[in-house]
Amino acid sequence: MSRRILAIDPALRNTGFAVLELTEGKRDPVALAYGTISNSKKLRQSSCLLAITEELRTLIKAYAPTECAVEGIIFVQSYKTAITMGAARGAALIAAAEAGLEIREYAPRRVKQAIVGKGAADKSQVAFMVRALLGLRETPDADAADALAIGITHLRASTAKHLKGEEPELI
Amino acid sequence: MSRRILAIDPALRNTGFAVLELTEGKRDPVALAYGTISNSKKLRQSSCLLAITEELRTLIKAYAPTECAVEGIIFVQSYKTAITMGAARGAALIAAAEAGLEIREYAPRRVKQAIVGKGAADKSQVAFMVRALLGLRETPDADAADALAIGITHLRASTAKHLKGEEPELI
Repeated sequence: MSRRILAIDPALRNTGFAVLELTEGKRDPVALAYGTISNSKKLRQSSCLLAITEELRTLIKAYAPTECAVEGIIFVQSYKTAITMGAARGAALIAAAEAGLEIREYAPRRVKQAIVGKGAADKSQVAFMVRALLGLRETPDADAADALAIGITHLRASTAKHLKGEEPELI
Repeated sequence: MSRRILAIDPALRNTGFAVLELTEGKRDPVALAYGTISNSKKLRQSSCLLAITEELRTLIKAYAPTECAVEGIIFVQSYKTAITMGAARGAALIAAAEAGLEIREYAPRRVKQAIVGKGAADKSQVAFMVRALLGLRETPDADAADALAIGITHLRASTAKHLKGEEPELI
């Protein structure tokens, strides 16, 4: 049975998303779709949130993922930012939850560690490695690359038991 | 033309809600509905968020409100709490935004000031005043009382120009 992962890196203005497929018996996943849900700075917060939920809902309908992985939030500049990031994250979780997907969360450090081999890797290193790992023809933009990286991390955490870190949180 | 306000005090486990109607020519609003969307501690975060959106969606269908007011978040204990509260707030905003409602935000201090006359009022004072102002037969529980108070504050801010504080933020 093949698995399809919806991976999301939620943010109010730029939410990275990716759909990865791992076919049974294969070692490496294939990227079926990836990109960024961009919301103009002119849009109100509530409209941005709705756009995140609706675009993810469309993606879920189109690709029928079987599970979901999101990036955890660690660094925030202020409580105001934390609340806004939390709202974007809520918008993403709603789309996944209404489709009945189990959602697991991975800390940014863990994703970087899994993809680049060091928890303090920068965005361009993540994008470069994601491109190589998935054999993409172009380097994905930073938000899409993050989502692809989350998806790969999730697949590794759930398939290679011996490489497993702590059990990812089900949220 | 009468106005119907959907007022929300969002939180992951207990979201207060209220629908107030102000009929043209009348001075005081009537509470059409109020209560609390409660989520069991056993429920996952994503299921709680979905429940908030879905229950508000049902309420909006039943009462067809024409505008929406939510409480702003001021005090938070930690970034983790801020992210969770932000997610609950996002779930509420999505339900209002998908119904095309304009959403305004009021700081907790402003709501207490409007209802009790002092920004540092406690929850029981808010509930007591809300009951008196709306002529309710029983004192509403704390979360529903907060939502009712937000609704009254919004109506006052938008009708009594001379009592207006700063323009409430459209979110």
